This record gives sequence, C-alpha cells and structure tokens, in this order.
Amino acid sequence: MDRLMAIAYAREAANLKLLSLSSEEVEGLLVEGNLTIGVVGLGRIGLPSAAAFAHAGLQVVASDINPEVVDSVNAGKSRFVDEPGLNEMLANVVARGKLVATTSNASVANQSDLIIICVPTPIDQAKSPDYSYIVSAAKEVGASLRSGSIVVVESTVGPGTVEGLVKDVLEAASGLRAGIDFGLAACPERSDPGSIMMNLGAVPRIIGGDSERTTEIVAAIYESSFGVKVVRVSNPKTANAVKLTENLFRDVNIALANEFAILFEKLGIDSLETINACASKYNFVPHYPGGGVGGPCLPSNSYYLITEGMKAGNIPYIVRLAREINDRMPEHVVELVGEAMNEVGKTIRGSKIAILGVAYKPNIKDTQQTPVARVCEKLVQMGGILQVYDPMFAGEKALGFDVKGSMQEAVADADCVVIGTAHKEFKDLDLKALATIVSGPAALVDSRNVVEPFAAAEAGFSYRGVGRPSWPQKSEPVAQEHRIASSLPGLE
Amino acid sequence: MDRLMAIAYAREAANLKLLSLSSEEVEGLLVEGNLTIGVVGLGRIGLPSAAAFAHAGLQVVASDINPEVVDSVNAGKSRFVDEPGLNEMLANVVARGKLVATTSNASVANQSDLIIICVPTPIDQAKSPDYSYIVSAAKEVGASLRSGSIVVVESTVGPGTVEGLVKDVLEAASGLRAGIDFGLAACPERSDPGSIMMNLGAVPRIIGGDSERTTEIVAAIYESSFGVKVVRVSNPKTANAVKLTENLFRDVNIALANEFAILFEKLGIDSLETINACASKYNFVPHYPGGGVGGPCLPSNSYYLITEGMKAGNIPYIVRLAREINDRMPEHVVELVGEAMNEVGKTIRGSKIAILGVAYKPNIKDTQQTPVARVCEKLVQMGGILQVYDPMFAGEKALGFDVKGSMQEAVADADCVVIGTAHKEFKDLDLKALATIVSGPAALVDSRNVVEPFAAAEAGFSYRGVGRPSWPQKSEPVAQEHRIASSLPGLE
Repeated sequence: MDRLMAIAYAREAANLKLLSLSSEEVEGLLVEGNLTIGVVGLGRIGLPSAAAFAHAGLQVVASDINPEVVDSVNAGKSRFVDEPGLNEMLANVVARGKLVATTSNASVANQSDLIIICVPTPIDQAKSPDYSYIVSAAKEVGASLRSGSIVVVESTVGPGTVEGLVKDVLEAASGLRAGIDFGLAACPERSDPGSIMMNLGAVPRIIGGDSERTTEIVAAIYESSFGVKVVRVSNPKTANAVKLTENLFRDVNIALANEFAILFEKLGIDSLETINACASKYNFVPHYPGGGVGGPCLPSNSYYLITEGMKAGNIPYIVRLAREINDRMPEHVVELVGEAMNEVGKTIRGSKIAILGVAYKPNIKDTQQTPVARVCEKLVQMGGILQVYDPMFAGEKALGFDVKGSMQEAVADADCVVIGTAHKEFKDLDLKALATIVSGPAALVDSRNVVEPFAAAEAGFSYRGVGRPSWPQKSEPVAQEHRIASSLPGLE
Repeated sequence: MDRLMAIAYAREAANLKLLSLSSEEVEGLLVEGNLTIGVVGLGRIGLPSAAAFAHAGLQVVASDINPEVVDSVNAGKSRFVDEPGLNEMLANVVARGKLVATTSNASVANQSDLIIICVPTPIDQAKSPDYSYIVSAAKEVGASLRSGSIVVVESTVGPGTVEGLVKDVLEAASGLRAGIDFGLAACPERSDPGSIMMNLGAVPRIIGGDSERTTEIVAAIYESSFGVKVVRVSNPKTANAVKLTENLFRDVNIALANEFAILFEKLGIDSLETINACASKYNFVPHYPGGGVGGPCLPSNSYYLITEGMKAGNIPYIVRLAREINDRMPEHVVELVGEAMNEVGKTIRGSKIAILGVAYKPNIKDTQQTPVARVCEKLVQMGGILQVYDPMFAGEKALGFDVKGSMQEAVADADCVVIGTAHKEFKDLDLKALATIVSGPAALVDSRNVVEPFAAAEAGFSYRGVGRPSWPQKSEPVAQEHRIASSLPGLE
C-alpha cells in the first residue's frame, strides 16, 4: 500500500481537475504520462484495458472485488490464457510499477483522474439486466470521487442507464453534480474475447459524454493511449444504443440463419452451400447457423434493449424472437443426436457420447453461457454417458465434467461424436482414424459445421449437421403439394 | 412472321440438341452466335436479358402476353425509361434482327435451344404465391418444347417449385422427361431495378440444374453472353433458396432497423447517428429505417419461403414478423404526420399535404407495392388534400393522382411536406426556400431521412423523421424508472 499512498498524495498535491483542462493541457499530460487512470473491475475487459493504459505510459490503479484476482494481478499474472499478448504486457507494466491493483474502489476513485467502470452486467434468471454490480461500483466510486474527475462506463448497459441510474448513484454518493463537478461518459467495450489486445487498437471506440468537453477529453485519452479511432456520438445513451445495435444485429442474423437452417434441413437444402452462394452478392453478409449462441455478450445484450423497450411501451419483437430461436438450438442439436443414433440402431440412453468442445466459441477457454452446456445437460438427462474433450480444458474440469486429456480418449468406444465448438483442433479431423476407435456403427453430429457431410458418411458415420441434409443421403421426395400440378390454374 | 418462320425452319434443319452437346460444341456455337435463346416474359427482367443476349451475338426470340409490349419491343422501344443503356441496346439489336418479339410462347419454345422463363410470380391477396403465370407459361412452352432443349426459370419461386411444379407441368405438356429429353435449371434473377444493365455483367449468377450437364451448359451460356461470374449450386431448389435468403436478409434487417427506429424515437436517440457509428465495426452492415419496403421483390419474396415452410411444418417466424413490421411503417409515417402537424396546430383533415416522391425507391419510375401508396391512402381517408410530386412522373398520373409538374407546385401553400422517396432531386432540398412557399407554420415529415432534422427545424418546420428525435428538440425526461436509484440494490 505504500506505493498507492504515494500516488494518492502526489495527486492531491497536484489537485488535478481533468474536466477543466484545455485540450492542450490534456495532450501535455498524456505526453508526459502524467495522468492516473482508474479501472474498476479486472475481468476480461478491465484487465486488458488496465494493462494497455499502463503500457501506454499512464499510471493505472485498478480494483476488483476478488482478492485472489487482485493478488494475481499484482504478481503480474493474467488468468486469461486465451488472450495473446496480455500476460507479457501485464508482467511488464506491473514490474515497472505502472499498474497497481487493489480491492478498494474508494482508493481507485480517490487517486484517478479518469475512472473506468468495467464490471459485469449480467442478466438474472428472469432475463432482466442485473445492474447491482454497476450500482455498487458507482456508489463506492462516488463516495470517494474527486471534483474534476471523469467517470467512464465501459460495461454494457441499456441506453439511458448511464445518464439515468449511474449518474443518480454517483451524484447521490458524491454530493457532486455530473456535467459540472465531474464528467460522465459511456464508452462501451467493443472487443472480441480471444482478440482483445489486438482489438484495443483496431476497433474504433464509440464515446458519448454528458457534454462535448467530456467527450473530447475521454476521446483524447483513448486515442492517445491505444492509437484507436474514436467515433464521437451525442450522448451516453447513443453510445450504448450503438453497442446494443451492433450486437443485436449479429444475434438476429444468426437466429435468421438458424431459422433457415432448420427449414432447409427439411427441404433437403444445404444451408452452407446456400449462404456461401449468397455471399457472392454485394449487399449480403454471411452469418452461419449452429448449435446456439454463447458468451458474456450476445445471449444477454438483447435483454438490455428489451427492458428499455418495455419501459417505453415498445417491445422489440424481432430481437426477442431471435433470442428464443437461438436459445432453442441446443435442443435441436440433441434432436439431431437422437436421429443420427437412431439410424445406427442406438439410443441415447446407455450410449457413450463424445462431446468435442465445450467453450462457447473457437479457441478460447471460456464456457460462459455456452450452448454446449445445455446439450450436455439434456443428453445426461436422457441417459447418455458423456466423454468430454476440449483442448482448452484438457485434463481439467469444465461444465462439471472431467475433461479428457486427449480427443482420442473421448472418442474411444463412443456411439456418437458431437462437435460442440469449432476449435482449430477439430477443423481437420481425420474422420477415418476416428471411425476406427469409435464403437461402430456410430453417429456424428456436427453442431458447428466443421466437417464435410459426405466425408463423415464416407468414413462410416451416420451424419447430421445443423442446417445440412443428412448423410448418407436418402431420396428426397418433393413435397406432395408440388406433384398435384394438374389441379393448378392454367393446366387442364 | 416471315423472319420468325425462317429461323424456325433453320433450327429444325439443324436439329440442334443443346443438352447433348459437349462443352466444346457449346463453346463453338457461342463463338459463332449460332444458338437461339427464347425469353418468355418481357418485363423489367425479361426485356433487358433478351436485349443483352442479342447484344452478345445470339439470336433471341422473346414473347409477352401483352401485344402492345410486343409491338413496342419490335419497334425497338423500351418502356423502362429508368434503366440506363437499355433503350439504346434494344433499338440496336432489333434493328439488326437479333431480337424478335411475339405473343406466342409456342413459337419461342419451338425455335429456341435455351428457353428462359421471366414471368412475374406475384403474391395474391392472401399473401400466397400466385404461380398461375409460370404454370401457364410452362404449359405453353412444354406443348412446343423440342427434345434436347433446356428450360431456365429466372422468375423468383419457392425452393422446390422448379423441380416440382414447373417440371411436372413441362413434362405433362411435352410428353418429354426432364433430365433426359430436356434440361431444367433455376437461375434466379438477381438484378436491382434501375441498374439492371450494369448488374447483368457484374452480379454473379446462381445456377442450379437438374444435372451437372444442364448446369454446365447454362453456366457457359450466361458466362459467355454477359461476361458474368457464375456460382454453380447442387440443384434448382438451392438456387431458389439463395435468391430468397439474400432478399430476406435485407427485408429482415430493414425490419430490425425499423423496430429500433420506432423505439429510438421514444428514447430520444438518433437512429442514423447510431447506425453510422455501428458501421465503424468490422462485422456490422448498415441497414436504414424508413417508411416501408416496396417493389416487386422484397414485399413478396418472404411469402414464397413462408409457404414452403408451412408445407414442411416449419414457419419461419422472423421472416414473417419482419414483413409485418415493414408493412406497418406507412402507418407510422402517418402517425408522424399527425404529430408534426399537431405541433403547429393543424389537423390532417382539411389541410394540404405535399407528397414528395411516390416511387418505391429512389430514381426509378415504378410504384409497384410502394409504401407511399398506403401513406397517401390513409391521409386521404383522414381528410388530407394531397398535392403529389415525383420527378419520374411529373405531369403524369401515379397512384391515381395527377402528379404536379414541379416540386414547387406541390409544396405551394402546403401545411405539411412528406418526403416519400429519396429521389436525388430531394437530396439537397433548399428548405429555407420551401419554407417561404408553404402555408406556414408547416410540418415536415421525412420518411426517407434525406434532410437533417436541425436544418428542417432551423427553416421553421415542425419536423419528424423515421427513427430520429423530433425537432425542435424538447427536454427529454429520463425514464421514471431510472430516477428511483435510491430504491435500487446496493444504495442506501
């Protein structure tokens, strides 16, 4: 704590009021590295951001409620092994004293000129946004907020939450007035887990403050620290609307691909062939079907907007429907497992089922809201014996399972192989080799479309894939309605 | 008919069986221009295609049920004044005898090696696909089909309709077997009205035949004639699925933008600012809100897939919901008209309302399924006195209205100006000049977001735009729920 104290005294002596500085003065402080950035929340967004600000030469004080996290950060160690570049950068900035972690939000607020809130904003069981972490953070930050500081919310929240709830809590706790005594801005994180260090400099930031002055100062700090392009918007709610609009665009388009996929399976049309052909048109952007949508963002983000919409009397129906469609995809995967196994005369009950991949997306060690969890749960309920493998969790625990040390261990003697995540290890599967170790005849269900249907069939598997015709192919009768042409208008 | 007869005799003498030719032989015929292309249906797709095949050096025989259309084509005249390049090309190929039109589908079928069906496939009042034109065309083509010919369907139909309904009708009428005696393929048109001549060579074609042979021959003919890239797909149903997937992608994303727009209006967020900021993210593609979706494709295409989905027991819900949202946008425009006029103390009843633009999209002379029709209809029902202007229809009739000769005539003395179409003439409106000729204080409702809100307000209009905050701006109270922070968790 000695170092923390020293910084605190220095700050107080300087009596820096960031909000009242001119652009030139801010530039000057940035060049000298004479600004303190506070980061509240050392999760997948907060930790890389804290490290990157420190790497840019600024002093960083960061907090987390979990003392173990604080200790590991102060030891220069990142727990996000799937974020290339983070560990090295963290070790370096901690060793140089540029980044100090603490469990005290008060100490962050008191020492920092710019305080960035990066706490989680999950949804609760009833799918309502749970803003308790952000309220609690804002309250503690507010209680120690110095006049002249700026608070930035990076956490994803519904539009209106920053200038509403967060502002109210900060004002009540600090006795200061937003826009006058302190600045408040939204700068929603826009990074993609697994690529965060790269994204920090590459994906433009959206910044909307409570005044042009606030926006300008925050923009200057992000631009200078990360070398990133900044898009300035009118106010915090617009910045939050941008974050939700872009994520809901993805969620809805994946749901549309899933909706088409299930229909195309029935019509004997290959969704992947269709989507890739569509991509030849200038105004089409491919989204692919799969076994569901996971992670900290997409499954939750819709509900922030739905909640604001319901308050305003306008439910965004497409967004809501998209969520339901994506949430049901794991059940569809289980249905495909049942069909494929049935074809080789096996039931789920009593059969060994290899699950390849549990992470919510390729090449990261993260099972947050992974749809594979629901696939596993249902298969276990139906009496399946699961043999789980995921290269990111080899030999560890994941989703409550003991993850096998190798793919071969999981696939050995299996009656069905289910691909749950498109990890790179599963991209060039030697299906013929796998076929020799399963308990043949076996089924293969690909929820991520990483194997070619005919190749799976050729290797001897009974194949099903989301949105793809089954293999071996059956003759596909054209729908009955099409064959009664003689009763149609214009034909005698 | 003498020229037609001469071609017919020559064909018969040659006894060309396109389907049984090798790729080299097809190449040879293409180089020599020694192939006859039949085009059934001389509408916005058929006429440009017929002209382009003739321009490429092939002989073209084309039919339409409307004798006036046939006469005008034989006179070298295009009725599509909004398709740059078409009229010149048509005049040239007709003058050179490369394109001959007839009212007889039999004559097209009898003389052609490749017969392309380009008839309309509208939806009926109950939103079911109306395949009566295509059935009737297939019946007449079938009755005169020569063995060895290939039939291509460019009309948009549900997946399965070509290898189902169309095949059945052709086989029944011809006594020939598809895939053996004649070839059948889908090559759905992919052009954008207003840019068709340019699109023919630039937008890749999707071709799926009843055999690889059919696909190859049809692909060779399109590639050679238009210099266009061809994407070969497994079968006709996949080609039709591609066409629907890409158009429904647009329809759904516009609906999503509209859904957000209506909510963002209530939250005081500018949709355009939001969307343009989203566009800074690498995986976002902007779609803009507006007063509805029109034209021959988007408002209908969903129903082909919904119909096939219902037959297969799988309603594509998002697609259906999107249609309903887009169909309701004209009512929202009328609502904005009511609000904006109310603000200047005027009612729709008894007021003069200038409608600027009736075409379903910018810079084309086409009102097919234009959403502006419903805006006009409702305003008239509510007692509004409409003064309609559209540069493409100046001095003519459109939607039953006498279109004014100039924008000034329509705007003169108006109590409200409604922008219905984003024609280029409306992009740089001199709002201050317009303000001097309206019956001020007047309202301005922009359903296509071509004017800047503050500029409209500055010129003295009471402004409303789809998805944009109203101007002059009112103080926007933050939602009540946000202000009761003190009752929220974590705050005493």
